[in-house]
Amino acid sequence: MSQLIEISDPADPRLADYRDLRDVELRKHLEAEHGLFLAEGEKVVRRAVEGGHAARSFLMAPRWLEGLGDVLDRSDAPCYVVSEALAEQVTGFHVHRGALASLERRPLPSVDSVLTGARSVLVLEDIVDHTNVGAIFRSGAALGFDAVLLAPRCADPLYRRAIKVAMGAVFSLPYARLEDWYDALPQLSAAGFTTVALTLADDARPIDEAVAGLDRVALVLGSEGHGLSARWQQAADRRAIIPMQAGIDSLNVAAATAVACYVTARR
Amino acid sequence: MSQLIEISDPADPRLADYRDLRDVELRKHLEAEHGLFLAEGEKVVRRAVEGGHAARSFLMAPRWLEGLGDVLDRSDAPCYVVSEALAEQVTGFHVHRGALASLERRPLPSVDSVLTGARSVLVLEDIVDHTNVGAIFRSGAALGFDAVLLAPRCADPLYRRAIKVAMGAVFSLPYARLEDWYDALPQLSAAGFTTVALTLADDARPIDEAVAGLDRVALVLGSEGHGLSARWQQAADRRAIIPMQAGIDSLNVAAATAVACYVTARR
Repeated sequence: MSQLIEISDPADPRLADYRDLRDVELRKHLEAEHGLFLAEGEKVVRRAVEGGHAARSFLMAPRWLEGLGDVLDRSDAPCYVVSEALAEQVTGFHVHRGALASLERRPLPSVDSVLTGARSVLVLEDIVDHTNVGAIFRSGAALGFDAVLLAPRCADPLYRRAIKVAMGAVFSLPYARLEDWYDALPQLSAAGFTTVALTLADDARPIDEAVAGLDRVALVLGSEGHGLSARWQQAADRRAIIPMQAGIDSLNVAAATAVACYVTARR
Repeated sequence: MSQLIEISDPADPRLADYRDLRDVELRKHLEAEHGLFLAEGEKVVRRAVEGGHAARSFLMAPRWLEGLGDVLDRSDAPCYVVSEALAEQVTGFHVHRGALASLERRPLPSVDSVLTGARSVLVLEDIVDHTNVGAIFRSGAALGFDAVLLAPRCADPLYRRAIKVAMGAVFSLPYARLEDWYDALPQLSAAGFTTVALTLADDARPIDEAVAGLDRVALVLGSEGHGLSARWQQAADRRAIIPMQAGIDSLNVAAATAVACYVTARR
C-alpha cells in the first residue's frame, strides 16, 4: 500500500524524478540514465501500472488521490502529495490532468519475440516527433496491429508526450528496437513478412492493391520530414501510396498511418 | 513591392500584430478585434498570400528574405526585418521556421455558397483543439473533400497553430460557419446531403457500409472530449463507426477523420 507523504518544499530531493518535465533534452538524458519514465493523467498512470511497470513514486494534488485509490492500494511506491502550485513549480507546467507517476522501464523484448505470432506489424524508420509516435501507437492498437518495430533513431514511445497521445497504447502494443538499420527490411522479409513501404515514389501502388491478399505484412513508415530513406524504399518488397488530390504534398504521417492501418487490417 | 524596414526596438508599435503569440486567449481577442491572423513559415506564408489574403505586414530575420523574395515583390505591405533574438522576444517563442506574416481575414462565405457543387463535405461540431482542426483540414483536402462546415463553437481554422498543422489547407479548402447549431443537420439533409455521424453509438454501422453508394455526403464529427452531442447524433441520417479492436476506447479525432475521409472518398 502506497504511503502518502506530504511535501511542501519544491527543492525536496524526493521530487527529482519530476523536475523540469518540459526540458526535452534534460528529460531524455535523465530518463535514460535512471531507467525511468513519466506517466501523466489518471487513465494513463493506471494503464502503465496495469501494463506491468513498477512505480518508483506517484505525485499528485490531494483531489486526485481518490480516483487512483485502488492503484495506490496495490503499490508499495510512495505517493508525494503536493499543492497544484508546487506541482507546477517543480515540473515546469500546469499539470491539468492531475496525477503523475514515475515508473521503471523494463528491458525491451527482442525483435524475434514481438514478431512471434504477429500478422500485422508497423515499422517506424526515423519518426522523431513524440506526438507522431504516440498517435501511431494509438491508431495501430485500435486498428488491429500486433507489434511495432522502431529503427535505431526513432523517438522513444515512453517519452511523456508520446504516452499521453497514445492514451497508453504504448503499454498494450508490444514493440522492440531494431539494432541493424541497414538490413532490417530484408530480415523481415526472411522472417516471412511482406514489407510494404508507404512512400510518394513514382512506382508506388495504391495501398489497398499493395496489401490485397497478403498474409504477414510489415507496414513501413518514414520520418515526418523527409520520408523513408532511399535504402528502405529500395529494400522494401512493395511500395504503396495513399491516393491524394492533385496539388497536395502529403498527409501527416499519423493520418497516413491511420488510413494505411485501416486498409491493411481489412486486406 | 514590399518595403524592408529594419527594427531593433522590441517595443516598436509596428510589431503589435506579432506580440505574445503563445498567449492563446490574448491572441483570440486581438485577432478577432482587428480582423487579422498570423501565418508562420515560408510555405504557409506563401500559401496564405496565394490564397488571396492581403498581408498587413511581414516579419522575418534577414536570412528568410530570399526565399520569400517573389512574395515580397508582389506585396505592398511592409516587411519588418529583425534579429532572431528580437523575433523571439516579441512573439514569445523561437520562430524556427523563420518568416511570419500578419494577414487580413476575409468575410467567410455563406454555407450555401460552399455547398454549391460540393459532393463530400466535413461538418465539425465542437472541435476545440487547433491542432485537430488543422489536421482535419489537411486530411480533408488531401483525400478529396470539397468543403468544411463549422459549428458555432468549433475552433478557428485561421488560428496560427491550425494553419501550421494544416500546411495551408485552410486556404484551399472552402469553409463556412454554421449559424444554427440545432437544425444544422436537418438543413443539410434538406439540401440533398446524407448526413453520416461518426460515433461509438450502439446502432452505428461500419463506415464503409454507411457511405456505400451515396451521392452527396456530409461526414459529421464531434468533439475530441465527448464526441457528438445527443442532438446531432439523433439528427443525423446515419450513424457510422470505424471498427476497432476490443478494449480500445477510440481513435484520435484526426486519425478517425483521415480514415473516414479515405473510405468516404471511395464510396
